[in-house]
Amino acid sequence: MDAAEFRRRGKEMVDHVADYLEKIEERPVYPDVEPGYLRSLIPTEAPVEPDSYEDIMKDVERVIMPGITHWHSPNFFAYFPAASSYPAMLADMLCAAIGCIGFSWAASPACTELETVMLDWLGKMLQLPECFLAGTHGHGGGVIQGTASEATLVSLLAARCKAIRRVQSLDPKKSEAEILSKLVAYTSEQAHSSVERAALIGAVMMKKVPTDNLYAVRGEMLKKILEEDKAAGLIPFYFCATLGTTPSCAFDHIADLGPLCNQENMWMHIDAAYAGSAFICPEFRPLLNGVEYADSFNFNPHKWMLINFDCSAMWVKKRTDIIGAFKMEPLYLKHENQESGLVTDYRHWQIPLGRRFRSLKMWFVFRMYGLQGLQAHIRKQVGLAKEFESLVRADKRFEICAPVVMGLVCFRLKGTNELNQSLLKKITKSREIHLVPCQLSGSFVLRLAICSRSTESRHIQQAWQHITQLAFELLQEHHH
Amino acid sequence: MDAAEFRRRGKEMVDHVADYLEKIEERPVYPDVEPGYLRSLIPTEAPVEPDSYEDIMKDVERVIMPGITHWHSPNFFAYFPAASSYPAMLADMLCAAIGCIGFSWAASPACTELETVMLDWLGKMLQLPECFLAGTHGHGGGVIQGTASEATLVSLLAARCKAIRRVQSLDPKKSEAEILSKLVAYTSEQAHSSVERAALIGAVMMKKVPTDNLYAVRGEMLKKILEEDKAAGLIPFYFCATLGTTPSCAFDHIADLGPLCNQENMWMHIDAAYAGSAFICPEFRPLLNGVEYADSFNFNPHKWMLINFDCSAMWVKKRTDIIGAFKMEPLYLKHENQESGLVTDYRHWQIPLGRRFRSLKMWFVFRMYGLQGLQAHIRKQVGLAKEFESLVRADKRFEICAPVVMGLVCFRLKGTNELNQSLLKKITKSREIHLVPCQLSGSFVLRLAICSRSTESRHIQQAWQHITQLAFELLQEHHH
Ligand SMILES: Cc1ncc(COP(=O)(O)O)c(C=O)c1O
Ligand SMILES: Cc1ncc(COP(=O)(O)O)c(C=O)c1O
Repeated sequence: MDAAEFRRRGKEMVDHVADYLEKIEERPVYPDVEPGYLRSLIPTEAPVEPDSYEDIMKDVERVIMPGITHWHSPNFFAYFPAASSYPAMLADMLCAAIGCIGFSWAASPACTELETVMLDWLGKMLQLPECFLAGTHGHGGGVIQGTASEATLVSLLAARCKAIRRVQSLDPKKSEAEILSKLVAYTSEQAHSSVERAALIGAVMMKKVPTDNLYAVRGEMLKKILEEDKAAGLIPFYFCATLGTTPSCAFDHIADLGPLCNQENMWMHIDAAYAGSAFICPEFRPLLNGVEYADSFNFNPHKWMLINFDCSAMWVKKRTDIIGAFKMEPLYLKHENQESGLVTDYRHWQIPLGRRFRSLKMWFVFRMYGLQGLQAHIRKQVGLAKEFESLVRADKRFEICAPVVMGLVCFRLKGTNELNQSLLKKITKSREIHLVPCQLSGSFVLRLAICSRSTESRHIQQAWQHITQLAFELLQEHHH
Repeated sequence: MDAAEFRRRGKEMVDHVADYLEKIEERPVYPDVEPGYLRSLIPTEAPVEPDSYEDIMKDVERVIMPGITHWHSPNFFAYFPAASSYPAMLADMLCAAIGCIGFSWAASPACTELETVMLDWLGKMLQLPECFLAGTHGHGGGVIQGTASEATLVSLLAARCKAIRRVQSLDPKKSEAEILSKLVAYTSEQAHSSVERAALIGAVMMKKVPTDNLYAVRGEMLKKILEEDKAAGLIPFYFCATLGTTPSCAFDHIADLGPLCNQENMWMHIDAAYAGSAFICPEFRPLLNGVEYADSFNFNPHKWMLINFDCSAMWVKKRTDIIGAFKMEPLYLKHENQESGLVTDYRHWQIPLGRRFRSLKMWFVFRMYGLQGLQAHIRKQVGLAKEFESLVRADKRFEICAPVVMGLVCFRLKGTNELNQSLLKKITKSREIHLVPCQLSGSFVLRLAICSRSTESRHIQQAWQHITQLAFELLQEHHH
């Protein structure tokens, strides 16, 4: 395919994309396929000679679409949102064309520099303390990670490195292995599974801190465990707080937890994967108070800020903490400017070496929406969640299971877990809407998250009507 | 921006992309900017109200382009190639529109299933042993990782988990910490820095194995170190072989190393990040002989197989080895089919949770090029490297520093390292071509890698003329 054919096919693809998104509501949100459905639909080997483009596009409809869970359908309410917007898609087309791999400043200065400035822009939108910004001649700065999981892992590894050095500086006879075996990381029992996974990867112990009746960790709960663990000779070194937990969007009390972590020489990382986007609205910003105590902070613009996956924004107070944990300098990656102190080589900030020019997406989205447009998006989706909440609250057969703060509603039929499991099965099977469950205090709970940019009030009303209809049928069956 | 405006802007962007790539040769391949150039060119904060799209596109030329290292210029010969092709870009547009996050089968069955089948297609193109394929009812299978660095890390973590379990099954009294402190991983002293980094992350010791005069590790070299380490009470558990090292594209002797690793219960991972693509050509396939002894194998189609970043293909012989090292099952990620044994939940195979629909790119590229087209691409680029090699060999002032097997030529001026450093400085400063150095046996060596899809014989001839011209000037200066 040459440039001329790309001009033709590219324009067709633009229309194809616009058509798909404009008519997405007509497709069942959840696919009706059995595991293994795809293999038999295509050849067992790649073709030796080229296939025609027309055949490939026909196969997109024949082979791919039947197996798609349509995350951008207005009837998709599962997990958390995956961000998507036209400006982000345009930027990604440009990113693909430039196709630079920005592991170092020299590998494409614009790629590194736009990222640093975009993270400053975003940090200011969130009113992050200046110490997290790069343009203030301080020690902090931001970076785009692929996912929140990676940001958590990077923060844990930086903390591990710092803790080992600190303990060794106090007691040079202690071996690294000995220290490692005594290090303990902490997180909420409601934290995302990626946090526990980070500890597994980093070969450190991790303990789960119990939460209060709103599923949030409070200072005193962490304090109690720390005292016990220190008395037992362990070395607490890391706490990952969650702002907006995955099951119920609960908020750990970072304003209490932060000072405690600082006092105990523990790294505090904040995982606000979903909720972080909302902090650009003044009415939600108080939930971020206490971030000044954190060593690192992360959230996913690729969840709720209209920037297509992957784009996870992370800030650290001290760049050297992260860089120090990873730095490797083979000659083929060295360049003239790197010792000047002026440049950032992002490969030292992340797990992978290679990286795309992802800040282009941020730049396009921030400029095409403006801060006001982004705030409007958040507020609209929170409004829809509140609308759904009122519908649930008005129906005596149902209960709301956690405060509705942002775009997530946790609810259930009053009754057994089995009953609610049956309800969810019916919902999933009907394929009109899609949602997933969570567990709260031993209860099986349904999670409805406002996800798609195209979800409107009528979809909320329809979803509720559908749910109550299925619930009605279910309760009838149970009666007989 | 609504769908109608996206149709318009998207088509403009398609033309913009085609224009950029068609005229890329007119731009200096390496940018002439100082560190920090970009910050002063744009506002310090995001706009509150939307900017116009025209302004953004003007800024792409004003702000971004001056700071781009043009990886797809035919005059770019640095690092290793970053793959790019029009079919891959089309597929990525579709991927962005679908915008599913494929962490589990249920999150979008097509995303998972196409990936499994594409890795089978690709595995067959490479003539991988059947045990690595998923469609053979064996225990193996493939996965797309973001980068080779992540594939290496995943393999090391799986090996670490397996080793700890094995040692504990023999001696249940040994603590995990104790075992961890005795585990040793090995790799070539020529291995990529990401391998050492994986050991750092995984908190295990790593030793560098010396290489022969062609920069390759041989069985006897590893064997010697293993004997010493075992005698010292250490537990060798992992060896990462490289096929196509970053400095000089050397090939470790896996056919000797493999049986040794198997015998010693060590996991053998093969990192063929760059060279792997060439194994689809029968004439290069013998270099992969011995892969049957490996536990995992990885290479980057995003380097040399026309599939845009990110797309790193990894296969394992035993899926359960990888999954076992990471599995976490919170309720919000569970789904009905997962216990059926029929589905793959790729989140257990990787470091991040979220993942894009990257197999679409593979599908489009494999079908639009066909195996023959892909082979032709490899052969053309190897041919260009050989052409450059002959030019170097014909000039008595220069020497070739390592065998030219694929698309990389390592060469230098006969003389001091300083002389060669000066030559590279002149090359970098002139901005007509771009390449990076490496170190071989203490010598400062220039690396010329055939990178861009648009590099032709005339670019090779021009590059050589340019290099010899600068060398001539340099040698004149040295004479005076
Ligand atoms: C609180 C929280 N943390 C982390 C993650 C993981 O996100 P990612 O896929 O970016 O790793 C999620 C995903 O839903 C989340 O809700
Ligand atoms: C041999 C080898 N391994 C690993 C890598 C790292 O690749 P990635 O950016 O995919 O992690 C490279 C990059 O050049 C390489 O040459």
